[in-house]
Amino acid sequence: MRIGELSARTGVPAATIKYYVREGLLSSGERRSHNQVEYGEAHVRRLRLVRALVETGSLPIATVREVLAKIADREGNLDSTLGVVAPVLTPAPATEPGERYLELALAAMERQGWHRVNPGIPQVRALAEVLERLELLGLGDMVDRIDEYAAAAESAAASDLRLLGTRVERDEILETMILGTVLGDALFSALRRIAQVEMSGRTFKARERQRPEPEDC
Amino acid sequence: MRIGELSARTGVPAATIKYYVREGLLSSGERRSHNQVEYGEAHVRRLRLVRALVETGSLPIATVREVLAKIADREGNLDSTLGVVAPVLTPAPATEPGERYLELALAAMERQGWHRVNPGIPQVRALAEVLERLELLGLGDMVDRIDEYAAAAESAAASDLRLLGTRVERDEILETMILGTVLGDALFSALRRIAQVEMSGRTFKARERQRPEPEDC
Repeated sequence: MRIGELSARTGVPAATIKYYVREGLLSSGERRSHNQVEYGEAHVRRLRLVRALVETGSLPIATVREVLAKIADREGNLDSTLGVVAPVLTPAPATEPGERYLELALAAMERQGWHRVNPGIPQVRALAEVLERLELLGLGDMVDRIDEYAAAAESAAASDLRLLGTRVERDEILETMILGTVLGDALFSALRRIAQVEMSGRTFKARERQRPEPEDC
Repeated sequence: MRIGELSARTGVPAATIKYYVREGLLSSGERRSHNQVEYGEAHVRRLRLVRALVETGSLPIATVREVLAKIADREGNLDSTLGVVAPVLTPAPATEPGERYLELALAAMERQGWHRVNPGIPQVRALAEVLERLELLGLGDMVDRIDEYAAAAESAAASDLRLLGTRVERDEILETMILGTVLGDALFSALRRIAQVEMSGRTFKARERQRPEPEDC
């Protein structure tokens, strides 16, 4: 297909496609004549992946390039490649979390039975850093309830992994995992906000019913 | 307290504090003499809220100002104020979702029994837009599994609301709700990524055990 069709099928403007090719995020098409370059289905898939990472995941171009390099690197088994890609998708904490919060994070993981997780991975530091911020901001009771949130997260992650289970090809598994992580955050956050509205309606309506009417005071 | 102590207690540099005052995100302290301004506990709390919204929530200054104005506006009951603040915290979808995806979102809400949610709120459009993106990117099976994610989101939202239930003061309830939304996304996303590592280890280790060793082929 020509660049116009590639653009139409992915929703990415032709100028942006050319920019991605220059930046090495997309292989160039096959040149057929001096003014015609041919693109294939692999370009469609790759372009959608890049777009999701840049637009939904708000990842910098350099990080996207790093993720794509991990996919292209055929060394190492799938599990280790997943282990290499995942931290790239986790924003590194701005500050190093305190020892106490690392311990809180590890204790929560222990209670959930998450024994296969290497305690040194950046995702654990990211969790500790959130716990620290929560406590600083007066939401220490959210930290106390971490097990409830961990159980909900485990249930979401189990669904994520069932998606991967239906993929067979290595690249497809990796792409699904990456898209599922980036878009999965957006999906869960949208659902949680709607659920909050529902629960808030139930809670505060109930409170108001219990309260005597102003006329009675 | 002086600006130096306010800065030390909140981790916000003095220059940034002055910037927030100029931008109307923080009321100015009480001037005691020509070179001494006194700040109180209300400034500490407000500054932490602003910092969380700007740094963790990555909200633009204008949006933070809007959120603070909603808190300051004493008109309307708590439930309606929560209803006004929440959409501000939900990034508006970049594109209007297709009708089909709005219907998918509403059907999922119906199945969850979320009957108190007004279908016209921006959070529902945000969900529909994520569903549309998922399908475009070849993750239609994540859309098919929306009920699993909705159940996990409901359980997280129920925990969120239990946090609010321990707050009595109107401003404290609103602040907790706002911080809980912004930091709650970060908390859940960190937990989910760790849970994914755990589940991935379980799944792919199991697959490898089932596979015959290369020597046997």
